[in-house]
Amino acid sequence: MTQLENQQPKIENQQSKIENRTWTRPHLLGLEELSAGEILAVLDTASALTEVSTRSVKKVPALRGKVCVNLFFEDSTRTKTSFSLAAQRLSADVIDFSVSTSSVSKGETLRDTARNIEAMGVDVIVVRHRSSGAPHLLARSVNCSVINAGDGSHEHPTQGLLDLFTMRDHFTKLGKLKSPSALSPQSSSLFKGIHVAIVGDIANSRVARSNIHGLCKLGAKITLVGPSTLVPGDIRCLCADYDVNISHDLDSVLPAVDVVNMLRVQFERLTSAAFPSIREYSRFFGLTRERLVHARPDLLILHPGPMNRGLEITTDVADCGQSAILRQVSNGLAVRMAVLYLCVGANSVARQRNP
Amino acid sequence: MTQLENQQPKIENQQSKIENRTWTRPHLLGLEELSAGEILAVLDTASALTEVSTRSVKKVPALRGKVCVNLFFEDSTRTKTSFSLAAQRLSADVIDFSVSTSSVSKGETLRDTARNIEAMGVDVIVVRHRSSGAPHLLARSVNCSVINAGDGSHEHPTQGLLDLFTMRDHFTKLGKLKSPSALSPQSSSLFKGIHVAIVGDIANSRVARSNIHGLCKLGAKITLVGPSTLVPGDIRCLCADYDVNISHDLDSVLPAVDVVNMLRVQFERLTSAAFPSIREYSRFFGLTRERLVHARPDLLILHPGPMNRGLEITTDVADCGQSAILRQVSNGLAVRMAVLYLCVGANSVARQRNP
Amino acid sequence: MTQLENQQPKIENQQSKIENRTWTRPHLLGLEELSAGEILAVLDTASALTEVSTRSVKKVPALRGKVCVNLFFEDSTRTKTSFSLAAQRLSADVIDFSVSTSSVSKGETLRDTARNIEAMGVDVIVVRHRSSGAPHLLARSVNCSVINAGDGSHEHPTQGLLDLFTMRDHFTKLGKLKSPSALSPQSSSLFKGIHVAIVGDIANSRVARSNIHGLCKLGAKITLVGPSTLVPGDIRCLCADYDVNISHDLDSVLPAVDVVNMLRVQFERLTSAAFPSIREYSRFFGLTRERLVHARPDLLILHPGPMNRGLEITTDVADCGQSAILRQVSNGLAVRMAVLYLCVGANSVARQRNP
Repeated sequence: MTQLENQQPKIENQQSKIENRTWTRPHLLGLEELSAGEILAVLDTASALTEVSTRSVKKVPALRGKVCVNLFFEDSTRTKTSFSLAAQRLSADVIDFSVSTSSVSKGETLRDTARNIEAMGVDVIVVRHRSSGAPHLLARSVNCSVINAGDGSHEHPTQGLLDLFTMRDHFTKLGKLKSPSALSPQSSSLFKGIHVAIVGDIANSRVARSNIHGLCKLGAKITLVGPSTLVPGDIRCLCADYDVNISHDLDSVLPAVDVVNMLRVQFERLTSAAFPSIREYSRFFGLTRERLVHARPDLLILHPGPMNRGLEITTDVADCGQSAILRQVSNGLAVRMAVLYLCVGANSVARQRNP
Repeated sequence: MTQLENQQPKIENQQSKIENRTWTRPHLLGLEELSAGEILAVLDTASALTEVSTRSVKKVPALRGKVCVNLFFEDSTRTKTSFSLAAQRLSADVIDFSVSTSSVSKGETLRDTARNIEAMGVDVIVVRHRSSGAPHLLARSVNCSVINAGDGSHEHPTQGLLDLFTMRDHFTKLGKLKSPSALSPQSSSLFKGIHVAIVGDIANSRVARSNIHGLCKLGAKITLVGPSTLVPGDIRCLCADYDVNISHDLDSVLPAVDVVNMLRVQFERLTSAAFPSIREYSRFFGLTRERLVHARPDLLILHPGPMNRGLEITTDVADCGQSAILRQVSNGLAVRMAVLYLCVGANSVARQRNP
Repeated sequence: MTQLENQQPKIENQQSKIENRTWTRPHLLGLEELSAGEILAVLDTASALTEVSTRSVKKVPALRGKVCVNLFFEDSTRTKTSFSLAAQRLSADVIDFSVSTSSVSKGETLRDTARNIEAMGVDVIVVRHRSSGAPHLLARSVNCSVINAGDGSHEHPTQGLLDLFTMRDHFTKLGKLKSPSALSPQSSSLFKGIHVAIVGDIANSRVARSNIHGLCKLGAKITLVGPSTLVPGDIRCLCADYDVNISHDLDSVLPAVDVVNMLRVQFERLTSAAFPSIREYSRFFGLTRERLVHARPDLLILHPGPMNRGLEITTDVADCGQSAILRQVSNGLAVRMAVLYLCVGANSVARQRNP
């Protein structure tokens, strides 16, 4: 513990200048409402915390005695596990509030459930819900922190942030990006010159929406690629304000982009037959070795997981050197640690009490 | 940890004079078998522990290295979460023994399941079971502590204790109660002059039974209010021994009482049509703003949760200033910490080994 | 924590001479691939760790900051709880990766699931799977440690080890075994002279297979007892290499053996009618008080649990003085602590990084 306590000041020092100036939110609800500076504050904090996961004792006491509750109304072991590990690595206590067996099934309102959880002395609720906006309702109902772990087809902000983190890390190492700093007045043009293709079921994807907001704020150029049924109206509006294009032809887009983010085909969300057949989808929008021949040699390949191997991405591409899919998972942990630290950590709590 | 260890003696000192003299039980099975002094020992310990939940680091090392297993045969995320948080706040390790996926479904007896859990070096089993008396069977089968988290329609002792805690806190602040002390010879008349109405489905309510036992032992006056089908024979017997009355008319009772405890209508427990219709129930036994006009202005409103808003209580009443519903949840945590501390803490373990 | 850190060197010293010389594996996949010396290294480490569970603070910091993930594709609360408690007692963080609600149900491959878990910075995956060999596939897919908690009807190595531990402990106390030492060149004949009957559904039993491998390596004599349908070909082959006999008559075997290990009748695994009726099975292969009359007075009775009382074992036999069934559960915890310590502890991790 002496060892852990000695490590504390180091992190505090690294973060203090960033968070005190830039991050003042108790909640993370979406990337839409964040500034470029706030996004970079999370990425910088995540960079500082990455080192923790490489230690033999992978723990810092930043959130010791704090309680994190996972309130998941949709199944997602992967995201929940990532949040739980992130909280434990900060020494917080973690509890899963199992919705299927809870008073929710006894007719309790979402607001009452959340206020009851808060009344038990909880510091942060990590919520996933099938309804867009549910985390925002919660944030207005409770005084503790609320982190959105995915709401309907609206946002999945920590996925967006980990994608941005993975891109920034990749392009910084390639020398394509200036050295990262949240305090830079140029933060909103940090990704200028980076061209990202987001491919797949845009309409149903909260991952796409969080990526679009985040990439736009950092100045990247975006091309959305998918069957016309899968690019909905609300995103067409975004295209007017930002440098966002729409294409239905992956082959024509691929040679021009620096990053391709292959969305998962979510069978469970497809309410109608959005595309003729699985084989059809795979033929037009799947990432294959043949397609990659025409892409840049330093193309970065992302996928939010879990993969349908052989559908939106072939096995050889998923496992090739340009694929950052497992690095995304590792970075997700660092990003979630950063979000919990910024929203729930000592400074934030003091801030909540003396607003 | 140095910080935590410094906090330990303070709690030990606060408790030592109480528990050494008054509390000697390894188990908490029901309020029926407790003395007034034992009930007050729990409430006093809970008062001392309330402060822990207001700290930045919400932890004391009282049960460090101890293991608490939740053995829930009925769904109850809320109660289980409260026990888990209480145990974690005392630095115990907590494990959920998931019954639906366990060897119970392979035909193992309850006693074998419990003895197996104990053989893994567990210190306390928190058990909820649909059968009245199941925790008592367990307590006879194992050497570790057993805490009843609700057995059939028999008892829910920690709910009873948190209701008593909330009442004592309320009336002490109002100056209606003498200063609390478990050592006072007048403990069995501490609540003398307090009149409590318990309203609803008395027959099916373990909350009602635990409240009745606890309130009677502290000298309160009780009126049970419900449709005649909902007040069963075993409680009519209690009425003979104590200051307990039965009424079927909420409006005539409400002006006279200091506390009203609105039980939840438990659809899932109603085996037959106990009352003609939901609307009927709500009209005769629901707590509404109109009804409250005739109540005392300092009436304390309790509800064990989860609420059926608009059924046994309207939304405006549930959220009004007299409602202590969320405070009950917070107090529940302190009471469960106290129960775990008294039954499992260092002194109790020594006691079990040298009986 | 000071207290815990002072305890660390003691364990390190006890273990260092054993593990450095004998145990070099990052995984535990089965007893088939272990040497007699390796088996004894686990048993010796378990002996040293047994003492931890008798302490008031049942924790050592050996795996502090390490993360253990339970990846159970088959229900087994008992084994999972034992592993979780073992990991917690070594101060590791434990997370259940719930398969039923995970991306596995979204079509992800086992290998991708495991590599994703590893990418979150996990140190050990404890896996149970219906397919024989699944843990071996995992071990080839990830760099973290993999512990087999049961794969199909193949192996259940920690159950085999805890059975061996319980036998060694029993016969050492009786003076039938020499003092235990993993370094002894006679390790492969340690159990020479011990005769063990394994009774029941051999064909479907991973417990039987792990026991057979372990007992053979330590030089014990084995008799397998069961209906002819329940002794399969792969085990008949083993009989050729080792001192293993097959019998279909429990009464003729019982008087000669030192240990009887009564397998559970696993209704859920019986695909066809392997024996005419339950009553028939019980009559020919159930352990009853009447049968025990002809056994040695110091016969040791084992059962892996959960028991079908009245089927493979009667209630009076299960609870008699010769039964070590609850001791097996307690020993299971020590054995699993030992396995986690040897595979994941500081030396092993260093070994993995510098192979």
